[in-house]
Amino acid sequence: MNRLGVAIVGCGLIGQKRAQALGDAARLVVCADVAKDRAERLAASAPGCTAVTDWTVAVNDPAVSVVLVATLHDSLAEITRGAIEAGKHVLVEKPAARNAAELAGLAELAAQKGVLVRVGFNHRYHRALQKAYAIVQSGDLGPLMFLRARYGHGGRVGYDREWRADPAKSGGGELIDQGPHLIDLARWFLGDFAEVDGFAATYYWDMPVDDNGFLLLKTASRQVAFLHASCTEWKNTFSFEIYGRDGKLDISGLGGSYGVERLTYYKMLPEMGPPETTSWEYPMADNSWRVEFAEFVEDIRLGRQPAAGLGDAVAALAIIDKIYKVSGYDHHA
Amino acid sequence: MNRLGVAIVGCGLIGQKRAQALGDAARLVVCADVAKDRAERLAASAPGCTAVTDWTVAVNDPAVSVVLVATLHDSLAEITRGAIEAGKHVLVEKPAARNAAELAGLAELAAQKGVLVRVGFNHRYHRALQKAYAIVQSGDLGPLMFLRARYGHGGRVGYDREWRADPAKSGGGELIDQGPHLIDLARWFLGDFAEVDGFAATYYWDMPVDDNGFLLLKTASRQVAFLHASCTEWKNTFSFEIYGRDGKLDISGLGGSYGVERLTYYKMLPEMGPPETTSWEYPMADNSWRVEFAEFVEDIRLGRQPAAGLGDAVAALAIIDKIYKVSGYDHHA
Amino acid sequence: MNRLGVAIVGCGLIGQKRAQALGDAARLVVCADVAKDRAERLAASAPGCTAVTDWTVAVNDPAVSVVLVATLHDSLAEITRGAIEAGKHVLVEKPAARNAAELAGLAELAAQKGVLVRVGFNHRYHRALQKAYAIVQSGDLGPLMFLRARYGHGGRVGYDREWRADPAKSGGGELIDQGPHLIDLARWFLGDFAEVDGFAATYYWDMPVDDNGFLLLKTASRQVAFLHASCTEWKNTFSFEIYGRDGKLDISGLGGSYGVERLTYYKMLPEMGPPETTSWEYPMADNSWRVEFAEFVEDIRLGRQPAAGLGDAVAALAIIDKIYKVSGYDHHA
Amino acid sequence: MNRLGVAIVGCGLIGQKRAQALGDAARLVVCADVAKDRAERLAASAPGCTAVTDWTVAVNDPAVSVVLVATLHDSLAEITRGAIEAGKHVLVEKPAARNAAELAGLAELAAQKGVLVRVGFNHRYHRALQKAYAIVQSGDLGPLMFLRARYGHGGRVGYDREWRADPAKSGGGELIDQGPHLIDLARWFLGDFAEVDGFAATYYWDMPVDDNGFLLLKTASRQVAFLHASCTEWKNTFSFEIYGRDGKLDISGLGGSYGVERLTYYKMLPEMGPPETTSWEYPMADNSWRVEFAEFVEDIRLGRQPAAGLGDAVAALAIIDKIYKVSGYDHHA
Repeated sequence: MNRLGVAIVGCGLIGQKRAQALGDAARLVVCADVAKDRAERLAASAPGCTAVTDWTVAVNDPAVSVVLVATLHDSLAEITRGAIEAGKHVLVEKPAARNAAELAGLAELAAQKGVLVRVGFNHRYHRALQKAYAIVQSGDLGPLMFLRARYGHGGRVGYDREWRADPAKSGGGELIDQGPHLIDLARWFLGDFAEVDGFAATYYWDMPVDDNGFLLLKTASRQVAFLHASCTEWKNTFSFEIYGRDGKLDISGLGGSYGVERLTYYKMLPEMGPPETTSWEYPMADNSWRVEFAEFVEDIRLGRQPAAGLGDAVAALAIIDKIYKVSGYDHHA
Repeated sequence: MNRLGVAIVGCGLIGQKRAQALGDAARLVVCADVAKDRAERLAASAPGCTAVTDWTVAVNDPAVSVVLVATLHDSLAEITRGAIEAGKHVLVEKPAARNAAELAGLAELAAQKGVLVRVGFNHRYHRALQKAYAIVQSGDLGPLMFLRARYGHGGRVGYDREWRADPAKSGGGELIDQGPHLIDLARWFLGDFAEVDGFAATYYWDMPVDDNGFLLLKTASRQVAFLHASCTEWKNTFSFEIYGRDGKLDISGLGGSYGVERLTYYKMLPEMGPPETTSWEYPMADNSWRVEFAEFVEDIRLGRQPAAGLGDAVAALAIIDKIYKVSGYDHHA
Repeated sequence: MNRLGVAIVGCGLIGQKRAQALGDAARLVVCADVAKDRAERLAASAPGCTAVTDWTVAVNDPAVSVVLVATLHDSLAEITRGAIEAGKHVLVEKPAARNAAELAGLAELAAQKGVLVRVGFNHRYHRALQKAYAIVQSGDLGPLMFLRARYGHGGRVGYDREWRADPAKSGGGELIDQGPHLIDLARWFLGDFAEVDGFAATYYWDMPVDDNGFLLLKTASRQVAFLHASCTEWKNTFSFEIYGRDGKLDISGLGGSYGVERLTYYKMLPEMGPPETTSWEYPMADNSWRVEFAEFVEDIRLGRQPAAGLGDAVAALAIIDKIYKVSGYDHHA
Repeated sequence: MNRLGVAIVGCGLIGQKRAQALGDAARLVVCADVAKDRAERLAASAPGCTAVTDWTVAVNDPAVSVVLVATLHDSLAEITRGAIEAGKHVLVEKPAARNAAELAGLAELAAQKGVLVRVGFNHRYHRALQKAYAIVQSGDLGPLMFLRARYGHGGRVGYDREWRADPAKSGGGELIDQGPHLIDLARWFLGDFAEVDGFAATYYWDMPVDDNGFLLLKTASRQVAFLHASCTEWKNTFSFEIYGRDGKLDISGLGGSYGVERLTYYKMLPEMGPPETTSWEYPMADNSWRVEFAEFVEDIRLGRQPAAGLGDAVAALAIIDKIYKVSGYDHHA
């Protein structure tokens, strides 16, 4: 089989991770970054790969079938649009834009151009979340009642001087950084949210964007997602808890400084009392990037809409937009 | 010193715990319960103690200085009022009433009668919470930013047929059962809440009261308390996390089926990164009831207002009232 | 089916546990204890049950088919012999005697009398150990290489004044108290030991028996059991680790103060590195006594030799005898 | 102050770690390795540092005051001797030789030459072990009774084809690889061992050296060290438990795949029962190499014998020699 030609736009940490996760079905043909040396370093890792500073060159390269967009938030939507217009499939990193408005019309454009757009909600592809999703799909947990999740890190010296602290580049703070993963996972399990409440605040870091976001989301049938994202969490934390009528799933850790990835399944017994308790740990390296991209390759082969697409990004951003508004942040101005 | 004469009204599980936690400075002189045998069994545990079925007899007994009120929620306020009117000091169990209105005028009445009223927010007296409070008071954690807590259990077969499921007796469900502890602890650390959002729902149990309450509370300076109480938690859980600018306190467990009580202190270093981490575990038996009552004895000796009083109960109930209202529960009707 | 008539000899803590674990297939008909009131209290828990102080009366009662022997160590063997001679099946608590010599001839006597003798190595029947055994039997762990285990508690004030500290009554200290469980579990998994090394010592308690036993046992094929039993463990501990060529089983906790019972299975992957890790927790009440006795009832019904019999007790005691001898304890004198 | 000139002999993983841990008081002046490119790569990390393939050149370089010996086991003793003869201070990695005999006369030679020799038992300098040692020294734990420790990893594909599997290069297997750390830590806390029992075996790996070592060591006053080292541990493990009359110290983890480094102190109360329990976690990067070398710099400045010297290496190797002999390994032949 011909390996898909891939362009990576944005050759920072995430672009590099993507390059390593292409698998056998794709090959890196062009790297684009405004910093020439970054593009060149990444290009050097793949035989025959070229380096450019102008992303329009990359997305229009005839050898390219798929564009991976891993830039700062302020150009995610624009480059995605450019790639679609060039007739390329796109994997754009979350949040895919600084706000929902930036994505207006993109889904229609992609449909018209006959290309697929996947949004990089890679957390869905972590082993523990994949297994949790399978358990929920099997019906063993019964109908879902609510979710509770927290995700956070402790920043680092100078965090408030980085690009994430500049709303023109980032579109916001913690809520648009780690928040989209929480919102997307919640929607993956519960579906769309009909009511959105919450609050974003800047407690610690000296920056005009939020460092904490609290969300109380409800589906039309009043299932709650109770979510908190923080970059003043001090001890890196990921916890995602799913409650069904017949049991509970508790996912914690994402590997590395977030602790070993683990899924615990509490299965209620007819006599109630302490549940049957089984845990699965995943001490091995995170393979979510590889699995996600392999699924995208398969999407392309089958002409199948990606599981996580533009609609999911728009839905997450609409929630974030609303919380920013009610909390007094106006990053659109 | 003369030992204080104590009446216990309500001789169920909590009344019995109170009886065992009186210490040396008090003695049980009368037990009251609508079920005669319950009153008699508890009275039999203390030499010379009498048993009655009419609480007014108990609170008016001249040998009684302190009345402990441990009945169902529907009579907590009424008996407290009766005891105050009889000129007795009162320790009333949380939530102290079915709603804030039931407590109207009681504080003034107590002041006028020269008696003290303590509300049994015993969780403040757990070892881990006492130590956490001391650390916060020392300033080591820096100014507080927000709290996050969850408290829940998994019910038991027939839970929805118990008195707690009857709003006339209980005033509500989970939010007025375990919720008051969370709210009171949050107020203890952060002070009064200026904004109250949240949601209560009945997901699982076949009852007209809530089985889950979600709270997003804000102080005037926008410090958040993000709280969840649940009786569909399946795995018994208590977690209370306190975030300051300079570190984090994580309290988990309350002993027994809630797991070993533990406090972990994450102290941020100037260079940030992984915090200094110290934990204290308390595998020994819970002594909160004894410590709380000993402090009340000292309150009485000194004529000092109890740390947790009627104002704290009213504040917690006002929050609960509001959440019930916005969530569509009308238990006052 | 007729319920088996049971006599319990020794109505202390263990005798009481046995009484509660008889299940539906047996009924308690006579209780014997040198302390009359203890026998009477236990007898009162079963309708029609009588209480005696002379164990010979109990074992000769024609309504009795099974004798449970739960006395101090010094009479375990004697009463077992008496019960066998009376033609009764016997469940005798571990260690079954103060030393191997006390059991000489008993197995032959039982065979001759046509009765079954089970030794109460109830730890085999804990949920985690049952599941571990099934995994090993399935072959999934591969051939076993070695075991490592530790079992201990922290005593209590006056522990060295209790009967366990008197070698005439107990036959020894920690090694003959918790040690037999470790040795029996090790033999259950690995089979007989051909070489016995180790050491017993009295470090802390003021008593003429050991408070710590260290064992290095080897099968004929040099599989090691590396075992430690202690009553100066301070923090109650049970850990039993089983190493096969293809993975590891780690059992920890026994419930209560020993922590939640848990089995973790580390399954090696062909690429090695971090193993696949699955845990099962058993927060529910220990049912080992009930399961063990039910199996004995089935042994009796089928005329089947019990899985844990006199031979297992003799083997464990022979190891303990040897360690006591090399460590300078002479409790036979 | 003049920075000490350092030569590193052996530029593999450990040599590289040493280079990064020199601190401000020393500078790397020459790197030696039989593989030229390895020496050159390490030398390139320090300005003005040269690379050689002949270690005798390095140790005789007049700019060198301190030689760090980080080669395979078969040349540790020889190079240490050469460096001493050249009048240089030496830090030699554990085990410092393949057997005790190789170190004969070295301590005397060093004394005669007026140089100091430190052996790289860096585990003593892990934060948790440093703190544990301070607690023991303070007397808070009371007199020590015994130690229990286990240290192991799960190897990797081809582990039995590496140099460690060749006794001519390594002097043995697991017992001389991770074993010396356990033995040295045990001696650090308990002092010399008067009796040495144990067993080494090759269970899994296809190699002529052991993959498991079990030790039962006793001091003259019968304090036991019960130690196990394994390279078939499957799940990487480090546990070191210290028992005193008044409490217990439990050290677990060494960072990375061994889990977060943690010290738990169980302090017995006069009433016994559950101990007071305090834990300290060290999630930050291991600094043992830096602290150890800084102490050596101070040793040199003060002319003070290093805390861990040739005598400690000889004592550990003598124990290993004995266990190999009784277990049927003859690596000296």
